[in-house]
Amino acid sequence: MAALQRLLALTPLARGVREHIQSWLDSRFKETGHQNAYFPTLIPYSFIAKEAKHVEGFAPELALVTRGGGKELEEPLVVRPTSETVVNHMFAQWIHSYRDLPLLVNQWANVHRWEMRTRPFIRTLEFLWQEGHTAHATAAEAEAEAKAMVQLYSRFAYEVAAMPVIAGRKSKTESFAGADLTYTIEAMMGDGKALQAGTSHNLGQNFAKAFDITFTDESGAVGHVYQTSWGVSTRMVGGVIMAHGDDTGLRLPPALAPVQVVVVPIWKKEEEKAGVLAACESVVRTAVQAGVRAQIDAREGRTPGWKYAHWEMKGVPIRCEVGPRDVAVGSCVLVRRDLPPGKDSKTMGVPLDAAQLAPALHAHLAAVQAGLLEQAVAFRDAHIVDVTSYQQLREVVDSGRWARGPWAGSDEDEARVKAETGATFRCYPFEQPPPDACRTCFLTGAAAAEVAIFAKAY
Amino acid sequence: MAALQRLLALTPLARGVREHIQSWLDSRFKETGHQNAYFPTLIPYSFIAKEAKHVEGFAPELALVTRGGGKELEEPLVVRPTSETVVNHMFAQWIHSYRDLPLLVNQWANVHRWEMRTRPFIRTLEFLWQEGHTAHATAAEAEAEAKAMVQLYSRFAYEVAAMPVIAGRKSKTESFAGADLTYTIEAMMGDGKALQAGTSHNLGQNFAKAFDITFTDESGAVGHVYQTSWGVSTRMVGGVIMAHGDDTGLRLPPALAPVQVVVVPIWKKEEEKAGVLAACESVVRTAVQAGVRAQIDAREGRTPGWKYAHWEMKGVPIRCEVGPRDVAVGSCVLVRRDLPPGKDSKTMGVPLDAAQLAPALHAHLAAVQAGLLEQAVAFRDAHIVDVTSYQQLREVVDSGRWARGPWAGSDEDEARVKAETGATFRCYPFEQPPPDACRTCFLTGAAAAEVAIFAKAY
Repeated sequence: MAALQRLLALTPLARGVREHIQSWLDSRFKETGHQNAYFPTLIPYSFIAKEAKHVEGFAPELALVTRGGGKELEEPLVVRPTSETVVNHMFAQWIHSYRDLPLLVNQWANVHRWEMRTRPFIRTLEFLWQEGHTAHATAAEAEAEAKAMVQLYSRFAYEVAAMPVIAGRKSKTESFAGADLTYTIEAMMGDGKALQAGTSHNLGQNFAKAFDITFTDESGAVGHVYQTSWGVSTRMVGGVIMAHGDDTGLRLPPALAPVQVVVVPIWKKEEEKAGVLAACESVVRTAVQAGVRAQIDAREGRTPGWKYAHWEMKGVPIRCEVGPRDVAVGSCVLVRRDLPPGKDSKTMGVPLDAAQLAPALHAHLAAVQAGLLEQAVAFRDAHIVDVTSYQQLREVVDSGRWARGPWAGSDEDEARVKAETGATFRCYPFEQPPPDACRTCFLTGAAAAEVAIFAKAY
Repeated sequence: MAALQRLLALTPLARGVREHIQSWLDSRFKETGHQNAYFPTLIPYSFIAKEAKHVEGFAPELALVTRGGGKELEEPLVVRPTSETVVNHMFAQWIHSYRDLPLLVNQWANVHRWEMRTRPFIRTLEFLWQEGHTAHATAAEAEAEAKAMVQLYSRFAYEVAAMPVIAGRKSKTESFAGADLTYTIEAMMGDGKALQAGTSHNLGQNFAKAFDITFTDESGAVGHVYQTSWGVSTRMVGGVIMAHGDDTGLRLPPALAPVQVVVVPIWKKEEEKAGVLAACESVVRTAVQAGVRAQIDAREGRTPGWKYAHWEMKGVPIRCEVGPRDVAVGSCVLVRRDLPPGKDSKTMGVPLDAAQLAPALHAHLAAVQAGLLEQAVAFRDAHIVDVTSYQQLREVVDSGRWARGPWAGSDEDEARVKAETGATFRCYPFEQPPPDACRTCFLTGAAAAEVAIFAKAY
């Protein structure tokens, strides 16, 4: 029972958000030449053990199947924590010549990591994700792929999730077990904590050598392939909830909202009911025909106020109110979820006529999408502070903000910052300060090539 | 390693077919009011044990996680073989009142069953499927749902997979462990064997009682819900391959083919190449703009003949050939994969002009879709034989066909037929013979209310 609570269950609402994430990413993956495949969930333990750093990183988090069909297994099977090993087992059979490269594959799958401290969506024993796995003829191509994918994730975060993430490179200690380099997008939650919301790894030839994936190049020479892997998980659903939510519930970006517009009928006298309901149904019809995900809440026995609260909690971007006086003049009221209740959030007198209502709905949805991003950008920029000393970093981190400063520390220095402040290394952001900015490590005083971000994180 | 070969790996081609199956079914589920959710993969063993027949049926096939995070678990976790138990654990928390009903949920997921004899796609330790789970206020609603879903599966099989399945009801011994009734679609493979390609179960109140899922009705009375579950799996991909494939490879129905049209350029002299390739690319552009999944095979170093064989093996429904003489007169050749090579399969002189080519492509795809179904119907009808005696059944089954005859046997009689002939009970087909047909059980001679189908099966 305790275990179950740490596993993943997605209600239709969360699953709906997930579907829109999946749909957007899947289209972009295919546009960029990736194909979906599927690899086994249960992986022989010996596969995991082949890449030394990989097994070292994942062994403590594994769930092991030791019995099957009523018998003790000779070799335990690992419930996949990630699929590099089994994918590479297959790649070794699929790749022979430069003609087979690049091999660009993605899979949508569930994975399990035995986390001790769990938290809904953000850290669960099971999560759903996509994992891309690619093989290339040259190191440069693999590096370009790893970078392109983290940039795609960043684009998704901004354009679809309305989350102004910071993209950058992980430190050695925060990199994926078995990768040469790990890129990340770091999102700021409503409480100021950081959430690693997607990663992309340049695996170099580490797995290729462990699994002996070789190819013959055009000159006839045989070499190991260069590889990447990259993933975004159901953690993103938690990120959307925690980045945008307010005191009254979720605030979903329209691009991800399973219901974009909810229509609430208002009537007091029985003779008003039919006209109001008919107008509400025409709003839904107009919306659906215009490609908007809309539904009516015509439940009896609930007041309009109760319904407003219910749908605000569920984060529906636009509420459409229709009462008898609206029907009389052929209009309705649109209310935006991204703004606090009040006259700014309301547009009165929106015509019910389809030719005017449809563009008004689209305009309001676009306004909510932009409004959520704008608020998140303002919040982010107010919560990242440039620091030049360790003392400053401590103050910034203690106040729930992110500290950005020149960094030339060692692995041990990084561990010290974490132990003393609770803040972890988030990334070397791709966007670096101008060349004339301070270049002295805030901790060690050594010359620093780059600034890094430290923050408390989920 | 042995274990891995029995697990599921889908190449991009198989995964592509699966995506089109998923996309069609998912749209229909949503149109009929079902919502997607997600439930945990790992299920506490005690859940599985709650419904007596369920655990009896599934215990021998379970994969058990006994270690997690480096420790022995107090209670083993079952890698889900199906999700009734964990779904019902959640339903008990979600359902309180008649207002919460019907609850119509589906999940797309992977499941594991420890099969001893495996076969690619058809019987693997792991498979991908969708599983619908619904709860209703009355027995009649649950029965209507179970029937509606098997009819939806049947519609999918005919309209999309070009598989003329026989829909019907399972015998008690062939029903799902924990169901009152199981409905099925039975497909005929190219070798005459039967494949159970989808099932829908009326679960009655069996799980509702085991998991104590109750609701208060409008009068204030409390009762248990009535439930259904239903699923189609990656086995359907195997069914499509084995129903339509011929000696030269796959033959994919256009509705499921990841590539519907492959364009093969033909040239001998270097000066012909540019013109031919340009014409091929225009064909792909026209096709894609018309919503057809098309691609060019412009690989160097492979002859057109090699490419024909390659794409025939992959089951691409339409091949478009473009050579220098076609370019000269502004036309191309379309070749259907459903017909044997020869003049019937070829349409010469199809204009390259988009206004004429686009409808020609659609017409050819529709012809292949219809052609595959027509061939499969003819094959099916030639391989189902009405029998009135056990001796007849033996002869029919031995000749690789399906036997259909009046049946009033007991569970033991059913077991005897299986042991003596190798044929299993497939279904009582919904479509029954006219009232004046023979009604004497072919085995026992007792009065039989229905005819049943027996066949060798995967």
